[in-house]
Formats: sequence, structure tokens, C-alpha cells
Amino acid sequence: MKIALAQQNYHIGNFEENVKKIISGIGWAKKQQADLVVFSELCVCGYPPRDFLEFNDFINQCYASVNAIKEHADTIGVLIGSPARNPKGEGKDLFNAAFLLHEKEIKAEIHKTLLPNYDVFDEYRYFEPADEWKIVEFKGKKLAVTICEDIWNMDDNPLYRITPMEKLMPFQPDVMINISASPYNYAQDVVRNSIVKAHTVKYKLPMLYCNTVGSQTEIVFDGGSLVYDVNGNKIKEMKYFEEDYGTFELEELARKDQSFQHAVNEKYYYSASEVGVGEDTIKYLTNEKNIDEIYHALILGIRDYFSKMGFKKAILGASGGIDSAVVQALAVEALGKENVLAVLMPSQYSTSHSVDDAEELSKSLQNAYNVVPIKNIYESFLTELKPVFKELPFGLAEENIQARTRGNLLMAIANKFGYILLNTSNKSELATGYGTLYGDMAGGLGVLGDLYKVQVYALAKYINQRNRPAGRQVIPLNIITKPPSAELRPNQKDSDSLPDYDTLDRVLYEYIELRKGPKEIIDKGFDSALVTRILKLVNTNEYKRNQFCPIIRVSCKAFGIGRRVPIVGKYLS
Amino acid sequence: MKIALAQQNYHIGNFEENVKKIISGIGWAKKQQADLVVFSELCVCGYPPRDFLEFNDFINQCYASVNAIKEHADTIGVLIGSPARNPKGEGKDLFNAAFLLHEKEIKAEIHKTLLPNYDVFDEYRYFEPADEWKIVEFKGKKLAVTICEDIWNMDDNPLYRITPMEKLMPFQPDVMINISASPYNYAQDVVRNSIVKAHTVKYKLPMLYCNTVGSQTEIVFDGGSLVYDVNGNKIKEMKYFEEDYGTFELEELARKDQSFQHAVNEKYYYSASEVGVGEDTIKYLTNEKNIDEIYHALILGIRDYFSKMGFKKAILGASGGIDSAVVQALAVEALGKENVLAVLMPSQYSTSHSVDDAEELSKSLQNAYNVVPIKNIYESFLTELKPVFKELPFGLAEENIQARTRGNLLMAIANKFGYILLNTSNKSELATGYGTLYGDMAGGLGVLGDLYKVQVYALAKYINQRNRPAGRQVIPLNIITKPPSAELRPNQKDSDSLPDYDTLDRVLYEYIELRKGPKEIIDKGFDSALVTRILKLVNTNEYKRNQFCPIIRVSCKAFGIGRRVPIVGKYLS
Repeated sequence: MKIALAQQNYHIGNFEENVKKIISGIGWAKKQQADLVVFSELCVCGYPPRDFLEFNDFINQCYASVNAIKEHADTIGVLIGSPARNPKGEGKDLFNAAFLLHEKEIKAEIHKTLLPNYDVFDEYRYFEPADEWKIVEFKGKKLAVTICEDIWNMDDNPLYRITPMEKLMPFQPDVMINISASPYNYAQDVVRNSIVKAHTVKYKLPMLYCNTVGSQTEIVFDGGSLVYDVNGNKIKEMKYFEEDYGTFELEELARKDQSFQHAVNEKYYYSASEVGVGEDTIKYLTNEKNIDEIYHALILGIRDYFSKMGFKKAILGASGGIDSAVVQALAVEALGKENVLAVLMPSQYSTSHSVDDAEELSKSLQNAYNVVPIKNIYESFLTELKPVFKELPFGLAEENIQARTRGNLLMAIANKFGYILLNTSNKSELATGYGTLYGDMAGGLGVLGDLYKVQVYALAKYINQRNRPAGRQVIPLNIITKPPSAELRPNQKDSDSLPDYDTLDRVLYEYIELRKGPKEIIDKGFDSALVTRILKLVNTNEYKRNQFCPIIRVSCKAFGIGRRVPIVGKYLS
Repeated sequence: MKIALAQQNYHIGNFEENVKKIISGIGWAKKQQADLVVFSELCVCGYPPRDFLEFNDFINQCYASVNAIKEHADTIGVLIGSPARNPKGEGKDLFNAAFLLHEKEIKAEIHKTLLPNYDVFDEYRYFEPADEWKIVEFKGKKLAVTICEDIWNMDDNPLYRITPMEKLMPFQPDVMINISASPYNYAQDVVRNSIVKAHTVKYKLPMLYCNTVGSQTEIVFDGGSLVYDVNGNKIKEMKYFEEDYGTFELEELARKDQSFQHAVNEKYYYSASEVGVGEDTIKYLTNEKNIDEIYHALILGIRDYFSKMGFKKAILGASGGIDSAVVQALAVEALGKENVLAVLMPSQYSTSHSVDDAEELSKSLQNAYNVVPIKNIYESFLTELKPVFKELPFGLAEENIQARTRGNLLMAIANKFGYILLNTSNKSELATGYGTLYGDMAGGLGVLGDLYKVQVYALAKYINQRNRPAGRQVIPLNIITKPPSAELRPNQKDSDSLPDYDTLDRVLYEYIELRKGPKEIIDKGFDSALVTRILKLVNTNEYKRNQFCPIIRVSCKAFGIGRRVPIVGKYLS
């Protein structure tokens, strides 16, 4: 039996386009003379559909899509993902389902058992877990079909009490097939490979794992679909961050290597919490493998956000600093230099090198740029506020006026010409509240919001490295080497307000990604007062992040929908 | 046995204050010679603690709090709510638990079975459901203790497959006790009473139901704790929107009225979807009972947001329109007139009556106000943008510059003097995207974001009615009667861009609260093109609402954490 995997990029709720894409995938698989073609989880509606699932009308459209696809599943078997109604009069109204279509009929309907409900996942909000398990028979083979999280219960302290493969093994399946919508983070490929491999070793069956690809607002799905044979050998790792297709002969995957023997006590499965452990945090965060992946994830994140929102052109504020420089380089790569407008908005506190650096960058990237000085606008604010502010000294309010004037200018140009504003805040700033709401925190998409400052530097260097063959430093070296500054008052430096980024990012990583408490972090050797100060900054600035735009997620714990913290909470604050 | 209920207002994560309050509640109950005092769900840490629960350090503090409270549970029994660790090596790490404390010991630990995970609830994100059920024995009585949602499974099409009371009835309990953190919406009191009553009728037991009170960012808990006797009579409905205490003799509650007989087929339980059905939507949304409750919910929402954030003073932009007028009146009531600053920011497009109306309002409410004209600032923006905008005609961009200039001014004054900016956007505007991001959509708390425009009018009239004994129209009549306008261009009216609010709000209610699809709404008699247009406005403006501040929730479906919609989604858009 020849099985095809179709790793495709869907658009949530865009049934017309999704169905068209799936049907074209079926066409491709037929040409390869595949017996069965496998698509990813909830492919008919895109993942995650979130509260659209609460609309009957939306579920009707899912069923209509399945029916339209069914007509193309004539001689070929088609395995697709879709929500399915729960016919019983109890439990939630829907299942997260896989349908096997063949001979223009629905031959089997499989329900997902394990419904992830942590981090960015909300599946138990919508779906009833499966409470019966069955094998799918197709052309004389028994397929053990599971859906994404169903295979992610291998931990020593498992999150779920049921393991679906244990329910399916008594049926003596011939192959394991998993349809997924598994988001990217820079530890995920290691864990995903370990899980699929561990399954083949444990159950002595080959496994085909079909993931989706593409970015849906903040969540990037990285593809990387996997095929492992019965001996635990990786046969195929499909493309990352791109659509991809492949066909595989089940008989070959199932051929046992008699000489093959697994080492006793060999460890196959690595949980997410084991990745990067023991490595120096900064080295781990900035290692080449991670930065290379992050680069591609961000490019895809930008590109898909624009195409799925129906926009083409990006605008951003170019300060001459490293964050905006990196965003600008990414935007040019993702959208084309002709679709990126940089706006330089110097004030009386801007250093001349900032303007020069920003201009040099736009010349290097060959995108258009404008210069709109803010001095006069800023002074008109001060003039009108004079009767209210009276003789009070310059302070944070005046700094914020400048940042918000820039936000207003960027949005005005965006509104006038149909740009989307890219935000350039990084994770270290967002964590500590080092940014101005409605000012530099404005924008439609947070490109660097899940990268610590040390990672932004590493990414800048990576971008230059990557473009070296073209014979130029894309990002001027001076932007990378000068000390970071918001330039909202004379001679300001980030280090006036924040600990050095190396220390800050280490503490933030312990707190945010690893969820360590103050005592545990201090026990690692960090200064007690510093840890208390940083954690307090994080927790008292939740109100700001709550109004921030979606952030392209690249870590296992990004600010946004995957991190839900009470705003009025009084904890470590 | 004398049972006390303590309906208290906690602060999430503020263990010190919560423990102090619980201990003072125990002291009160001892003075009443109560045998047992009952507190609400997760009272030690406040509800909802959200991702704080993922920190071991946070759970340690919960246990430390339980231990501190235990010392006061000597002769008196104390029933409190707290997270509890799951000792088993599978399933999620925590339970949502009730602890019975007595003789300075933990005598019983009960786990919540039904974990709400819809709307604003995320309990399955953190908690493992109970998988064993036991009765709590105390002073010779058998207590059937359940936690909040555990009793909310009475629907004909129940959300859960297990009903905890069915598991407890075989133990022959003497009384039902439910500890809750049940949020307010204007249908909730009806449903809550019906559920408690239906339990006493079905299980032939008295029931004590202890709810929390107070607002946690966007979620308002309304109190209204209930005591029903074995005959299905309401013995007590505790105060709404305030702390309250009471004691009850179990023997009296359990005394059966032999003459009492329930009518055959009498309907006791009303699900949320049955409330308001059959009534005209606008009449239902604006009826006096609902508006009166909403008024108190908003006052509590404002007051608790400020006190829990550690702020005292509110600022708002006073346009002379009805939304800002209502917010201003609520803020003065909630925080005191000395803590409210109104800022009038007229432009060349402001009508003179707007400024007059806004001034009259501040004089009526006796709060301070400033006038900061935006004309000069706005013109300085246009001057600086001239090289970019060139000769393009006036449009949305120019309107937004004005709104964002006002946002910048308000935030500048807020930053300078330590105010929190109250947002005045209503639900109709937020639904349709009729507002400027970072402009009139700026603010720390959305006071009217869950009220349709028709409700804002009703609330304005209610406020005037309420203050009539004081002999004055708090809100000048002209503010209520004039046609609404954003005044961002000459002679602008809301009706230039939006359908009339009566129709708009009806369609929005069908789509947002009732989750009807386009076909179902059109079938109710609304114009097809209009429905398509409104639904498209709602869905294409998700990106704006995503950056909006928390909204005080008063309906069963508010924008914010209880409504999760994909931004790049392409559905009805």
C-alpha cells in the first residue's frame, strides 16, 4: 500500500480555499498512484478555529467541505481532519475527528482522545474526548489512526490517564498514522522526533505523522512531518516552514530488520522540559540551530499574517536601533523590498548616528523610507499641556508623549496608504514593561515579541552572515555594536533602567519559560534583590502586555494567548 | 448544627489579605456560635488565579495559607477552597479542592469533578477532575460537598457525563453544601436560583450555596449566596455586589413540611439559554432589573479594579457624548468626585454644545475638569505629514489622528499625575470596529464595553432617575437626546457609518450572545445585506478588540477572555 502525506498550509475558516487545496492534494496523490492520502488535523477549517466552533453555521460548513472532498475520494482513500458532531445527548457537542473517505463515502470516523488545554491550546473548550476506540480497516490493512496530542502522553508523569495507542494495540494494527496541527517552538523538532521514534520502538509498528504548516496569527506550524519505519529508523523528515508532499510504501516501512536490536534502556523519548537542560541558557537561546529556525518561523509568520489578512504592505518605525533593524530586514525578506516602508522619526533627543544608521539600513535593504521629525509635534503637545503640567519637571510622561507621537504618525501613514504596522518590541522589553503603550507598543503584529534581547542580537548577526555571499552587511555593524537606547531623553541608555540583558534574559527565562519561583531562581545564584525586582516588573506590567498585538510565537512560552495571567493579581508584585 | 456562610471579596494572589479576611470570618462565625463556617471556591488564592497555578511557588503559598487558617479551626469547622496537589503520578498536577478544617487538622479534602472550560473559564487547563466521591462527616452529620460547576449539570443535553450529586446520594447525606466562584451576568441570578431550588426538590435535601463577591479585572462575582430548605423554599438570598454573612440552623432547614407537595411536572430549572427568550431583545436588554444590576456590577467593577491595582484616581476624555457621560457618572459614584478628572479636548470639528454639555456634566458631578484643545497639535501633525500625504483628501487617517491625539493627551496627564484612564467605548462600537485603536480605544479598563448602545441610554436614564431625589438631572438631558456623533469631521453622525442602533444591537445580540449564524438571523426577518455587512464588520475588526483593555463583563458573552476568535480567520468576512 502506498501512502501519501500532504503537508499543507490552510487558512482558518476559509473553507473554499482549504477545500480547493485538499482536492489538489488528492489529485497529486492520485498521480503518484497512492492508495491513501493523509492530510492534517482539522484541515477543512484550519487550526485553531477557536470560538468559530461554537457556531452551528461554521460546523455546517465543515460538513459541507467534507462532503465536497468526498466526491474526490473515489478510488483513493483520503484521511482528513474536521470537527464532527457528538450524536449523544451528553458531553460537549463536538469531537475533533478524522474521517476516512473512500468510494465517495465516509468509511470511518475517529475521535481525538487527548485534548490539549495548556499553553496556546483550548481544545477541551470545544471538544468531547473519545470514549471508544476502533481500528480503521482499509484495503486489508489495519490503520491505528490517532490525532496529534493522542500520541503525546509518554511522560513519566503523564498528563492524561488514557493512552489511545494502548486502546488500539489489541486490534493488532499494521501501521500508526497520526494527523497533527503541532505548533513550532525551538525545542519542538527534537521532542516530536523522539515521540514518533519512541512509538515505533514501543509498539513495533511503522508510523506516518502528518503535520500542518503555516502561521495562524501568532501560532506558527512548522511542518516537518515524519515517517519512521518499524525498526525505528527515520525514513523521512519533510520540509520545515513550507508545504511538502511525499509517498511511502507501507510494505517497506513494515519490513523488519532481523539483525536490528534496540539497546537495553536506550532512551528514545525526550520531553520538552529536557531540551536545553544543562546548557548555558544564553548559549542555548542563541545557538545557530535555534536562530536559524526562528528566522524561518518569523519570515513565515510575517508572510502568512499579511496574506491571510489580505494585506501586502508593511510599515515600521526605524529608530536606528537593533530591534527595528532586524524587523525591517525580516519584513523585506518576507514581503519584498517594494512592500516595506520605514519611517524615521527623529526628535531633539535622537543622536545623529541613529538617523544615519537607519538611513543606511534602508539603503542597504533598498526599501522606501520617509523622515518625519517629531520635534514640532512634541512641542505642540507640551504647549497645550502647559496649563495642566505647569512647572513640573521632565519625566516619564514627556518620554511617552514622544513614543505615542511616533505611534500616531505611523498609524496615520498606515491608515492613509493601507500598510500594516509591524511592531518591533522584544520579549525582554515586554516582560519588564520597558515600552510605551500606544507608542512603541503599537502595531498589528509583534515580530520579535517572543525573542529575548540576546536572541535579537544573535538574529541580527545571523542575517548578516546569511547575506554575506551577497557581499554586504545587510544590517550596518554600528547598529549591532552600539549600546541600546530608547533616546527619549538626553544620553539615555537601556542600562539606566534595566539590568544588563545577559542577566535579565537569564532570569526571565527561568521565570517565564521554566516557571521557576523566586526562591528557585535565587538558589541558582542570582542576586536576591535583582530577582525580586525583575519578577515584580514582569507581574506589574501584565496590563500593558494585555493590550499588545499578537506575537509570533517561537518559544515554548510566549506572551499572548499561551500565557494567561490575572491583571489585578497581587503575586510577586 | 449551625452553619455560617461567609460571602467575601478576595484579591487574586494576595495571600496575606485573603488569609486575614478568612480568619476574621472565622472569628465572626465563632461569635455566632456556629458549628461550621463555609467560604467560597479557591478563597485562599482568589478566583481565577489563572496561570499563577502553574508556579509551584504559588501552590506552596496556597498550602501555607491553608495551614495558617487551620490554626483557627479549633472548635469550629471551616470549609475553604484551595488548589490541592494531585498525589498520583498521572493526570494534571492539581485539583480544585475544598478542605474541611477542624480541631486544627485537615479532616477532609474534596475535589471538583466538573471543570468549566467555556466562556471565561479555563479550569481544565489546570485541574484534574475528581475520580472518586465521598461524603464529609462532621459532628454526626453527612455533608454532600460540591464545588461550583459540580451542580451545574442539569441541562437536558448535559455538558458532562458525570453528575457528582448522583455519586454522593448513595451515602445518604443530610445536607448539600456548594462553594462557588460564580460570575455575574444579567441572567445569572435566575439560573442560579433555579439550580439550587431544583437540587432541593430533586434530592429532597436542604442546600447552602456560598458564592464569592468582588471584581477580578473583567469578571464580576456578584455574591447572592443562597440557602434553600428541604421543601424547596428560599430561606435566604444574600446581598448582591457586597460582602455578607449569615448563619442557618440545619435542623430548621431540614424540617419537612408534610403538607408540602410539588406540582407534577413543575419546572424548576432554567438554563441560561432560556432566560429572556420570547421577550423583545431591546426590552430585555434594557429592562429595569437588568440595568439596575448592571449599574451595581459596573460600580463594583471600577472600584475593585482600582483598589486591587493600588490606584485611586481616574481620568477620562469627556466628549459631551452619552458614553463618556455615563462612565463619568459611574466613576464619580465608584471612586468619589475628588478622584475623577474629566478632560475636554475640543477640535475644530467639535460642536459648541458638546463642550457646553461636557462642562455642565462635570459641574453637575462636581469633579475636576480640564480643557485641552487639540486643534494646534492636530495641525502640527498635518504639517509634518504634508510631505507624505501630499494633496490627498481628508479621510479616515485624519480622523484617527485626532482620536489618537486625544489618547496621547489623556495618557500624558495620567502618567504625569498617576491616574488610570477609563475607556468609554460601548459594545456596539467595539463589535463593529467603530473606534480608533490607541485613540478612543485607549484606557486601562473598559467600563461600557459589554453594554450595547441601547443599554448605555437606558443606564443614563437610570442614573438620572436614581439621583432624582437629590433634585437634579445628573446627566444633562441634552446629552441623552442629541444624535450620537464622533465629531471627527464636519456634521458627522454615527448613523453615517452604522445602521441605527436599535437594529444593529438586535443583530449583534443574535450573533454574539446567541451565536446565531447569518441564515438564522436573516430568517428572523432582518435584511440579508445588512446582516452580512454587520457580521463582516464584527469579524474583520477582531484585530482591534484583541488590543483592547479588559472589559467589565455583565453579559453572558463579553468581548475579551470569554470570546476567543482567530484574528486571521476568514469566516463571514
